[in-house]
Amino acid sequence: MNIDLIKQNLRTIPDFPKKGIMFRDITTVLKNPACLRELANGLTGYYTGLGITKVLGIESRGFILGPIIANNINAGFITIRKPGKLPAETISQEYKLEYGTDKIEIHKDALTPDDIVLIHDDLMATGGTMKAAYDLCKKLGVKKIYINCIVELVDLKGREVFPEGTDVYCPVTYKGE
Amino acid sequence: MNIDLIKQNLRTIPDFPKKGIMFRDITTVLKNPACLRELANGLTGYYTGLGITKVLGIESRGFILGPIIANNINAGFITIRKPGKLPAETISQEYKLEYGTDKIEIHKDALTPDDIVLIHDDLMATGGTMKAAYDLCKKLGVKKIYINCIVELVDLKGREVFPEGTDVYCPVTYKGE
Repeated sequence: MNIDLIKQNLRTIPDFPKKGIMFRDITTVLKNPACLRELANGLTGYYTGLGITKVLGIESRGFILGPIIANNINAGFITIRKPGKLPAETISQEYKLEYGTDKIEIHKDALTPDDIVLIHDDLMATGGTMKAAYDLCKKLGVKKIYINCIVELVDLKGREVFPEGTDVYCPVTYKGE
Repeated sequence: MNIDLIKQNLRTIPDFPKKGIMFRDITTVLKNPACLRELANGLTGYYTGLGITKVLGIESRGFILGPIIANNINAGFITIRKPGKLPAETISQEYKLEYGTDKIEIHKDALTPDDIVLIHDDLMATGGTMKAAYDLCKKLGVKKIYINCIVELVDLKGREVFPEGTDVYCPVTYKGE
């Protein structure tokens, strides 16, 4: 994958959504057809041939690349959403924020114990949301879990919240910037 | 497009999110690889060769199929979001709900007057959100606008809010059901 091309097109916005955060804005990557194709092909290549049956996207920026990968590797696509958005029976998982807690949900019938899943989101910071998604998959009893974000903020060590040996792939990394 | 296959997999949930609404749930379509592929290929086929440069998805279910189409026709993908979610300079458009109003936003630098755009969402009911997205594109001065939803609730006449001659394509329709 041409990581330089993606980094050149990724926009960093200081102090969004609040003071002190360097927001990594992928909208400028997605609007560039060459970058979108680079990401789509790169992620598809990485996850081809692993027997993945479902790609899970975390609301809402995880809905963008997740379905492209799913379609390309002939898997289904599942949404993991904020509370109250999914219309059928759900299970939910709480996770900690800097202040307070938040919650995500998945349809109870979204996965079966035979599924091999890839959970996708745009960015990994402390890994809190992704770990909650991982726990939802564990509750539904899947066979194997792959984890992918486009961007990883390496200093925040989000990948360390997953059990050793978990395949966590984030092609675009920022460290001490 | 095999519309029967999609309708067979689409789940209807009565009284969600409130009493009297028959909610058309596409999550059961998306999780089926054959259905996802059918939609992806069908929409890609329809929008190939029209010179579309940007596909716009409306938060958040419009983020799912929109990027697949964009990637397949070599266009960029743009997000239209609820207020406060986009990090750079935006323009916004208000629209009416049954009770009160709502608002959507787009990055000011997302489009140029040379763009030919496709606006995508999952479902067209009264057309309010889609018309607001249409108006955002008009404000930014694009060359041509195509409109697409997966599902259309025909009785609500959403397509009539757009100027005559607008290309509005919704492959899966429900009427009086």
